[in-house]
Amino acid sequence: MDAEPEYQGPVVTVDSVLFQLIQNELYVLLTQRAYEPFLGEWALPGGYNHRGETTHEALAGVLGRKAGIEYRALPLTMQLYTFDNVARDPRGHTISVTYMSLAHKAVPAGSDTTQNPQFFPVSKLPKLAYDHKDIILYALQRLRSRISHTNAIFALMPEKFTLTQLQTAYEAVLGHKLDKRNFRKRWLALDVLAPTDELAKDGAHRPAALYRFKQRKLQTLDPTFA
Amino acid sequence: MDAEPEYQGPVVTVDSVLFQLIQNELYVLLTQRAYEPFLGEWALPGGYNHRGETTHEALAGVLGRKAGIEYRALPLTMQLYTFDNVARDPRGHTISVTYMSLAHKAVPAGSDTTQNPQFFPVSKLPKLAYDHKDIILYALQRLRSRISHTNAIFALMPEKFTLTQLQTAYEAVLGHKLDKRNFRKRWLALDVLAPTDELAKDGAHRPAALYRFKQRKLQTLDPTFA
Repeated sequence: MDAEPEYQGPVVTVDSVLFQLIQNELYVLLTQRAYEPFLGEWALPGGYNHRGETTHEALAGVLGRKAGIEYRALPLTMQLYTFDNVARDPRGHTISVTYMSLAHKAVPAGSDTTQNPQFFPVSKLPKLAYDHKDIILYALQRLRSRISHTNAIFALMPEKFTLTQLQTAYEAVLGHKLDKRNFRKRWLALDVLAPTDELAKDGAHRPAALYRFKQRKLQTLDPTFA
Repeated sequence: MDAEPEYQGPVVTVDSVLFQLIQNELYVLLTQRAYEPFLGEWALPGGYNHRGETTHEALAGVLGRKAGIEYRALPLTMQLYTFDNVARDPRGHTISVTYMSLAHKAVPAGSDTTQNPQFFPVSKLPKLAYDHKDIILYALQRLRSRISHTNAIFALMPEKFTLTQLQTAYEAVLGHKLDKRNFRKRWLALDVLAPTDELAKDGAHRPAALYRFKQRKLQTLDPTFA
């Protein structure tokens, strides 16, 4: 950079795409705007990135204030993309550094906030403010890619789960069914799951073995996993 | 975002990580700083993102002015990450939206610029300004991941190439040797290469078939490719 005292740049904001599974379907957290522009419309939780705070700090503040979610307790967060269309905010040039988080049973604390945080199914989104629909669709594409070559799905799962639950989670994110035999064979060959000595009991089926991830942090899967 | 007229945000800059292969080794484009801070040190080509211009427009300006490179002629550019450590610039809180570009035989036009643009081997980087060494190492990691599950390598290659040249390009990026038989078998099974009806002639070896990529734009490879 050259010395340039009169620099005028875009406004910097952060937005959060927080996904979780609810009853075998992929949901995303939205808040209802309490201010203009887009007053009353649904939007991703977002806000300003002020001078002196990192984007992570800004994000933690936004999720706490607007959705009652404790950002640092979320099992996985990844920077997604910086959206920079100069016309994306009607108030003027504003870029958004977006993050994707994955959670399991995160509950927005609606009563502490002013922005009515709620989870919506990704397949049935309401009308959204700004370019937030594009951001969610981009995040979904990245999530699908991520679970195809990393263990990121762990962050959407309970600590212990059956292989059927794991497959159901994949199917919810990918939006299509997977072959049960291939799925099991591949996952058990990957050496990222450990059996527990517990069984899941549910009425209709015979008890199934419960597994856990050996590591609950992001790792790349062997690329032969489909 | 809430209405907030007194917003003061970080300065926004862009930085370019431009990789290319030179004599079977991975190189990155650096420029020599003509201003404080870090006067005289090597750095990624970078500069301010002004209000009213996208990060791509800022990047195109930077690469043209500081390195004599025509950004829009580069075969592949991907947004990498937004680096946001508040102390990364000694002048004050400055975020950098970084991009990774891949090129084949891009030549910096040194005489038109003030910043001495040169390609350096990634394995022998000089002392670098800011957090630019971290940015390059992050980009290298992403490039390795990208070529493992996409056809991104096309952007580092000439239009026509032998399978040996393709393997050599992979080895240069990955930093280790690959098994020739497996490499060929996998690539030919992927259905992303087309044979040309030409042969490469070089003295010491028997002529080898020249291939081209069916598409010279980013596509995901079958995940069974290692």
